[in-house]
Amino acid sequence: MVDDSPLTSVAAEAEIAEARAQSATTRRASVAALEEILFQPLAVLDHGFVRVVDYMGDDGAIVQAARVSYGRGTRRVSDDRNLIRYLMRHRHSTPFEMCEIKLHVKLPIFVARQWIRHRTANVNEYSARYSILDREFYLPEAADLGGPPETNRQGRGAPLSAAGAEAALQTIAGQSTAAYATYAKLLGLPAGADDTEEATTEGLARELARMVLPTNFYTQWYWKIDLHNLFHFLSLRADPHAQAEIRAYALKLCEVVEKWVPLAYEAFRDYRLDGVGLSGPALKVLRRMLAGEEVALAGSGLSKREWTELMATLGR
Amino acid sequence: MVDDSPLTSVAAEAEIAEARAQSATTRRASVAALEEILFQPLAVLDHGFVRVVDYMGDDGAIVQAARVSYGRGTRRVSDDRNLIRYLMRHRHSTPFEMCEIKLHVKLPIFVARQWIRHRTANVNEYSARYSILDREFYLPEAADLGGPPETNRQGRGAPLSAAGAEAALQTIAGQSTAAYATYAKLLGLPAGADDTEEATTEGLARELARMVLPTNFYTQWYWKIDLHNLFHFLSLRADPHAQAEIRAYALKLCEVVEKWVPLAYEAFRDYRLDGVGLSGPALKVLRRMLAGEEVALAGSGLSKREWTELMATLGR
Amino acid sequence: MVDDSPLTSVAAEAEIAEARAQSATTRRASVAALEEILFQPLAVLDHGFVRVVDYMGDDGAIVQAARVSYGRGTRRVSDDRNLIRYLMRHRHSTPFEMCEIKLHVKLPIFVARQWIRHRTANVNEYSARYSILDREFYLPEAADLGGPPETNRQGRGAPLSAAGAEAALQTIAGQSTAAYATYAKLLGLPAGADDTEEATTEGLARELARMVLPTNFYTQWYWKIDLHNLFHFLSLRADPHAQAEIRAYALKLCEVVEKWVPLAYEAFRDYRLDGVGLSGPALKVLRRMLAGEEVALAGSGLSKREWTELMATLGR
Amino acid sequence: MVDDSPLTSVAAEAEIAEARAQSATTRRASVAALEEILFQPLAVLDHGFVRVVDYMGDDGAIVQAARVSYGRGTRRVSDDRNLIRYLMRHRHSTPFEMCEIKLHVKLPIFVARQWIRHRTANVNEYSARYSILDREFYLPEAADLGGPPETNRQGRGAPLSAAGAEAALQTIAGQSTAAYATYAKLLGLPAGADDTEEATTEGLARELARMVLPTNFYTQWYWKIDLHNLFHFLSLRADPHAQAEIRAYALKLCEVVEKWVPLAYEAFRDYRLDGVGLSGPALKVLRRMLAGEEVALAGSGLSKREWTELMATLGR
Repeated sequence: MVDDSPLTSVAAEAEIAEARAQSATTRRASVAALEEILFQPLAVLDHGFVRVVDYMGDDGAIVQAARVSYGRGTRRVSDDRNLIRYLMRHRHSTPFEMCEIKLHVKLPIFVARQWIRHRTANVNEYSARYSILDREFYLPEAADLGGPPETNRQGRGAPLSAAGAEAALQTIAGQSTAAYATYAKLLGLPAGADDTEEATTEGLARELARMVLPTNFYTQWYWKIDLHNLFHFLSLRADPHAQAEIRAYALKLCEVVEKWVPLAYEAFRDYRLDGVGLSGPALKVLRRMLAGEEVALAGSGLSKREWTELMATLGR
Repeated sequence: MVDDSPLTSVAAEAEIAEARAQSATTRRASVAALEEILFQPLAVLDHGFVRVVDYMGDDGAIVQAARVSYGRGTRRVSDDRNLIRYLMRHRHSTPFEMCEIKLHVKLPIFVARQWIRHRTANVNEYSARYSILDREFYLPEAADLGGPPETNRQGRGAPLSAAGAEAALQTIAGQSTAAYATYAKLLGLPAGADDTEEATTEGLARELARMVLPTNFYTQWYWKIDLHNLFHFLSLRADPHAQAEIRAYALKLCEVVEKWVPLAYEAFRDYRLDGVGLSGPALKVLRRMLAGEEVALAGSGLSKREWTELMATLGR
Repeated sequence: MVDDSPLTSVAAEAEIAEARAQSATTRRASVAALEEILFQPLAVLDHGFVRVVDYMGDDGAIVQAARVSYGRGTRRVSDDRNLIRYLMRHRHSTPFEMCEIKLHVKLPIFVARQWIRHRTANVNEYSARYSILDREFYLPEAADLGGPPETNRQGRGAPLSAAGAEAALQTIAGQSTAAYATYAKLLGLPAGADDTEEATTEGLARELARMVLPTNFYTQWYWKIDLHNLFHFLSLRADPHAQAEIRAYALKLCEVVEKWVPLAYEAFRDYRLDGVGLSGPALKVLRRMLAGEEVALAGSGLSKREWTELMATLGR
Repeated sequence: MVDDSPLTSVAAEAEIAEARAQSATTRRASVAALEEILFQPLAVLDHGFVRVVDYMGDDGAIVQAARVSYGRGTRRVSDDRNLIRYLMRHRHSTPFEMCEIKLHVKLPIFVARQWIRHRTANVNEYSARYSILDREFYLPEAADLGGPPETNRQGRGAPLSAAGAEAALQTIAGQSTAAYATYAKLLGLPAGADDTEEATTEGLARELARMVLPTNFYTQWYWKIDLHNLFHFLSLRADPHAQAEIRAYALKLCEVVEKWVPLAYEAFRDYRLDGVGLSGPALKVLRRMLAGEEVALAGSGLSKREWTELMATLGR
């Protein structure tokens, strides 16, 4: 168990320890570096985590699937690394679909709402129709509190002042605490720490009471996805334009994937995370520049915004 | 425009009226009953709606697609209705996929969270990272407020007393109003109706401030789906076990689908909505009963729960 | 290795033996009965096979995923078998998606064309653009050769006479052999056993030459799918209405699934394979019959075809 | 009807003329340039075609869906073209999913086998279990007959000599004609043009007899897909690495899409068809070159193959 365990309950820790203590012999492809962290919660945000619960395949499974296509007459001149990079470069995605991973994730509802937009995955979520949610909500670090960005409506700009951040955190915490007290009151739960609240005599159904909880409360789910679609998820969510909170999960998952399939991850990093796309018109501009020509926005055939983005890409 | 319009803004009403005033000539299959309501918001819950924004195909398109499979030598003895019922009965789903509908839906976040679980659809949601959400939240009718069910953890049981319902509604409304005031305060919005609140001097980024809004606030999206997958959605969400709020949307959509593809809807109603499934062991019990035998739980080969459900299905 | 191995090459047998000889220790869920047959080709048709290449999860994984939904307060009164049957009965499909299996399949092209219609799977197929196909084609058993069915255009009717079957087999074999000779000739391959054929001096690209091979030639692929979608595949392809050749694969896969997840398979068999669906109008007829009423087609509200199918279902 | 109609039957021509003669008034978005060709077969290869059978949405629908995300406070400084290009550049794919098109396609079986690999589409195929296939097979143009490529196993190299091509065409035509004669014989069809063949007295079921037909015979299907996934299909199949035959269909579809959504097509052409991707390491090399440095393979950090591909991209 990691030291700063995100699990609040001793019971959960015991269950995980028990699961980790079990082992079996298998003929399947296994990855020692992933077995090492299997079932362990890896902390993300203040109360969240990702846990690898199961996996299928390794780098070799990608190569194996690609080589169904080779069959008789294959010379195997290319080694596994080159083949995997070739597949990534030319967007031959199906061999990457042959690896699969299953995660247990605890995450704020507003993050879950972005995450679920990725449809090619299997999901089982904890049901607030059926169960009572825990009193756990996401409270950002002060340093993560930014104002509106200057050049865009989306994202966040410069950090708030220390005083402003402090005020905002108190406001968020106060609202969240009050919301949970209302939730408990609607359920007719014994007041406990919220004993200044007057409980209704009649409890409301769980599926109704939960509607007062804000989206910074935590939910959890099992999430299973193949490697190709996970790479697509990560290319969007580990991107600097993604909201910082979901990006924190994506970056943690990048670490997990690097342990699991190091060759495929390296290719993904080089070609997707660090890679760029150039349009046909931008490529023409680039070729003129490489030929020594001075090219300016006027005469480039690009819009101002396209030109600015191209210059940023080229580091000019 | 319907009398009790769920649209709050005059501008939105004007835009819809303008869209409805335009028309074009098309060679495509058209459905007069759907054209009649095109673009009009159909009210659901207190502030929600569904609007049909576009559609493709009609009952004839299902038949046409099925008959690609017939080609040369087809005698066309079966008329369209019988063919559509045959396809539904034998779960030949692909011809139903040839029809498509696009909706604009306004719905509470907790309903959106259930809705989005249906992955085989296309979605564009209003972004609270980019825009400021309206001060609109769902407040149930008093009659819809139930307590916990007696026999299950999920769903809702008997309605609360009038006093209990009134207290719960006030609690929900109060919490929701306070949450929006906090949201506006975090954004640094001019206080307006919430002028008793003290605004922070610095505004928080929209993507952060929105985390204090509870899941009874409304969001909206464009949602596009083919008829087969829409039927699957409706079979789960128009079911009495579905939460009442999402079921209200599903029942409204049933009306829309009946206008659009009346033959397919009739088959769907008969075979799915009103239909039942029997397991192999239950079928054996049934055959014994039909043969005049007195069958009891003991000796039926069914578990107590399976037996109870079978007797309920058979109306015994 | 099974005695009647469908593998033609000694090299392939050696590769499989080597793969089976390797093992690792894992913390993942493992299934001894599936490990037993891992990598082994299970013969289907005259040259086909299915081989389990990898798997993720077991019966326990279904229960585990379903119970994310239970969380705090769960009493676990229901045991795993009852829970799995409940999930199957009420079409709660997502927990079954948490198990995944990967197969290597060798199958005739016309079977592959039916199989690939199931879209929710991952596939890597042997490429005839890249590699030369083997001289292996499907030749049915004489007993499997049926004439056209009497009551339908699809499927097959009574078996041919012994002489008719013999003639048909010779015709199919002759045509297939000639096609491969033409393929080899177009490729400019050394004539070998087809030395009565005159080779062209120039070889044709593989992607072109393959177009003369009929659809009874074998192809192969890796195919990976989750358990829910595999059940859907099996419910359609293990059905007596499916073409006999793809059904042979489906029935072999049923054996595999029974080894892998015996509780889930039992529920699938009872509720899907052996289960039936009744429409709302058919259910009304049934209730009248159970109440002792004599119901006839006239007055049943059913079409003739619906009536006939209902009586068949009820064994009358 | 186009002059060189790919339709063989007068009856089909009459059906299409009748469909084109009908019209209705609609409030839906309509595209005049697409209405112009609606239902008309557009010839591809020697007997194939694509026909637009239905469509939903236009360029405006993409913008409309994207702007659900803008809502209150939108200034609309960006016009539609810039917005669409922005969405394409930043891979915001969901607005493109809001347009849908339905096609009727006639194509050789080996092309259909590549095409069906794109899973996010709806398909209804003509059934050779149910119906008898036409005596129509694909025979390439002589100029399209290439030998094996020199540097790869896949694709085709230099064209055959005139004599070699002629010999190959005769071989393919002879094999295809013989196969159909065998098919007809197995079905017990009256001999007709194949009267030198001896018919079996007993006919074989259609689902069995069809197995002797090679994959250059034509099949047909209805195929429905959204614009985002169609762009993905086209980016792979209009690519010079795609097999020439499926590429012919893709290029014809590019013409159709340009008529349908000209702004989206222009963005797709610039950013996908004509665009290139650069890996992180390749981008570093490029920046060094732009700074005036002489960079060679050694010291570039790229493999030989990556280097060669980069130089080709940059036109060096």
